[in-house]
Amino acid sequence: MIKVGLIGLGTVGQGVARLLTERRDMLARRLGTELVLKKAAEIDAERRAAAPVATELLTPRDRDILEDPEIDIVVELIGGTDVARELVLAAISRGRHVVTANKALLALHGNEILGAAAQNGVDVAFEAAVCGGVPLILALRQGLAANRIHEMFGILNGTCNYILTQMSLHDMSYEQALAEAQAQGYAEADPTLDVEGIDTAHKLAILVSLAYCTPLNLDPIAVSGISNLDPLDLQLAREFGYAMKLLAISRNDGRTIEARVHPTLIPRDHMLANVSGAFNAVHLTGDAVGPILLYGQGAGMMPTASAVVSDILDLARNLTRGVKCRVPPLGCDAALEAPRHIKPLDEVVTNYYIRFAALDRPGVLSQISGILGKHNISIAAVIQKGREVKGAVPIVMITHEAREANTRQALLEIDQLPVVSPPAVFYRIEDPHLHAAQI
Amino acid sequence: MIKVGLIGLGTVGQGVARLLTERRDMLARRLGTELVLKKAAEIDAERRAAAPVATELLTPRDRDILEDPEIDIVVELIGGTDVARELVLAAISRGRHVVTANKALLALHGNEILGAAAQNGVDVAFEAAVCGGVPLILALRQGLAANRIHEMFGILNGTCNYILTQMSLHDMSYEQALAEAQAQGYAEADPTLDVEGIDTAHKLAILVSLAYCTPLNLDPIAVSGISNLDPLDLQLAREFGYAMKLLAISRNDGRTIEARVHPTLIPRDHMLANVSGAFNAVHLTGDAVGPILLYGQGAGMMPTASAVVSDILDLARNLTRGVKCRVPPLGCDAALEAPRHIKPLDEVVTNYYIRFAALDRPGVLSQISGILGKHNISIAAVIQKGREVKGAVPIVMITHEAREANTRQALLEIDQLPVVSPPAVFYRIEDPHLHAAQI
Repeated sequence: MIKVGLIGLGTVGQGVARLLTERRDMLARRLGTELVLKKAAEIDAERRAAAPVATELLTPRDRDILEDPEIDIVVELIGGTDVARELVLAAISRGRHVVTANKALLALHGNEILGAAAQNGVDVAFEAAVCGGVPLILALRQGLAANRIHEMFGILNGTCNYILTQMSLHDMSYEQALAEAQAQGYAEADPTLDVEGIDTAHKLAILVSLAYCTPLNLDPIAVSGISNLDPLDLQLAREFGYAMKLLAISRNDGRTIEARVHPTLIPRDHMLANVSGAFNAVHLTGDAVGPILLYGQGAGMMPTASAVVSDILDLARNLTRGVKCRVPPLGCDAALEAPRHIKPLDEVVTNYYIRFAALDRPGVLSQISGILGKHNISIAAVIQKGREVKGAVPIVMITHEAREANTRQALLEIDQLPVVSPPAVFYRIEDPHLHAAQI
Repeated sequence: MIKVGLIGLGTVGQGVARLLTERRDMLARRLGTELVLKKAAEIDAERRAAAPVATELLTPRDRDILEDPEIDIVVELIGGTDVARELVLAAISRGRHVVTANKALLALHGNEILGAAAQNGVDVAFEAAVCGGVPLILALRQGLAANRIHEMFGILNGTCNYILTQMSLHDMSYEQALAEAQAQGYAEADPTLDVEGIDTAHKLAILVSLAYCTPLNLDPIAVSGISNLDPLDLQLAREFGYAMKLLAISRNDGRTIEARVHPTLIPRDHMLANVSGAFNAVHLTGDAVGPILLYGQGAGMMPTASAVVSDILDLARNLTRGVKCRVPPLGCDAALEAPRHIKPLDEVVTNYYIRFAALDRPGVLSQISGILGKHNISIAAVIQKGREVKGAVPIVMITHEAREANTRQALLEIDQLPVVSPPAVFYRIEDPHLHAAQI
């Protein structure tokens, strides 16, 4: 019999408790022995009362779980990074295996936690931390282990994807779409972590470590969110055949790694362009396997619980066979030793969508394109819209590949021109056809 | 050091040899010890000469591998079912762990092989048998292990999907599209196993066992292929908003299981409708996780080799830790003991697309719909085309849900009518909106 202690009975914790209880027979048949919820800790009395857990298993004190010598696996589902870090480190130091769904914890304290786990010979599993119920971490850590991963593009945050879908389908403003997402339960009262791309960056940090065997490192990931998006740019992007998505993007050319999170224009026939509402998806390319897409619900009570319980079952399988640390948490023992260089955003080379608000005077286009040319930025397409927005006319350019630093410098200079009303708005584009066109 | 013996140096075998050789360092870093190709057997001298394997490792004799006491893992990649069965059973009886990509072998002899493996305490892994490099079996066996799987829809055969994509995009006949597929290397000289749906059924048998913990059973899977498809039906289906795909379909209502393979109409905005060319994808629904899609290359040298090497690595991880049979091959120990009933096709209830070739006379529609009504089949939509095809006018009906046996009986009776020119053509439809419309 394998005994589980659960800390945190919020939405996901309740889902995990439900699966462990209702699926007891099925899980026992899979495992070959019983998998039992021994104790569940939750500080909030109302949540304890509402939890689908027998009263005698409930406790308000985390240490009742940490100090129970019979508990084999500790499941951390309280969220946040301070208390969670202490709890997880305490469990590890006591030789308990740990399951967590906490991407912020891993992104910020993952190296410390995984280092402690290696030292204490325990497993830390976190399938639910990225893409909820989609077995993406299992795929990267095991299923695709023979591959060099070249590229990953992910829609990793359901809140942002829901808001962008609403803005795009119904021509809503960001504020309207956010209110709608909050009303539907897809966005929290304070949506900062989601809409500013921070949650997506946490998840990307985990994927980068898994894909390229490198320590967790959130700092060099450039992040911008969706809270400043103007619906005008979604409409104009559409006219060029693009959809706007908040993407986590990573590339590995063998020497350096790109890792960035920002609203991105992708062709409307790209598979990720059709991922709508609160769904998540990752499109990745391995050198052997080629392109792969995994798609599903990235959040919510039961999808997340599905991933947590699959982790519990996996660790339980180790316990019944008397093994541990069978697969390193990041798929590779060396992962914590060999940091790979992540390219600063300024060095990234990509295509851009740039919108200028220009006065409708002769010579404007030549002044703008002159400055772009000076910075080695060539133009693949331009549209100038007749309609005036705040006294100026939008000019939209799609560029060939250009260096980020050059683009930013060019836009600073263009913003000084008396014929444009600053600031220029720009978004990065991921479009393989545009790459090809330049060759 | 873990030593691998490879039997079969065809396309996939060469890919596996390449990965084991070229990725030696990376695999060692993942595993924590060396993973070495000890020997490779191939009866064909030309293939031996062409193989990316050092000459001293090559042998024409399978038994050089089976009888080598140093080999830990035997990889069977010869294909076919007779010799492969003997080889795999011989390896198992000698206590070797086995990796195979052979779906036909598993569908036909899987219970015998997995039974022998259980008896001898060895592992049999077969990630590459379904959807090539896509880690679908890993997902079903482990990642989604907390779920009851309700539904699976799969495009599991790249040859058929390539042919259907060509027919649909370029209004080609089946024969033209097949010739194109053969020219591109997507179809074999004798395409029977692929185009008649047999390969898809082999794969579905494996998925059904994994998803529902039941012994492998190919017999009750109803199969029809794509070789009789008339491009006219692809065109007419499109007018109703449908795409035609060869789908593996399975449903589990807790009591009985549906499992069938046939050309199927699906809404054009369904994710599977946009899986084109030689790609594979599976859309499945688990009760906790909700809908999931996995997509990628289902065949080819390196995608398949990617899956085979991930299996080798997984078994090697067991070997280095001194464990075996950590996860049962079908995800559940009871799987070989508890056969589940698979519903005969006659009992399936679904929607139909039916095309009649009718003489353009008054009363035809009322005669046809009278017979359908008598068999409890009600009509959701009808179109009658002005254009004549072989002296008759096509009438196409989309039905509400009806029992397969009733539909077949009704069509037999309609085919007797003097005003129609038999036989009526029918395809099954998977369209959630159509289900809903009937309620």
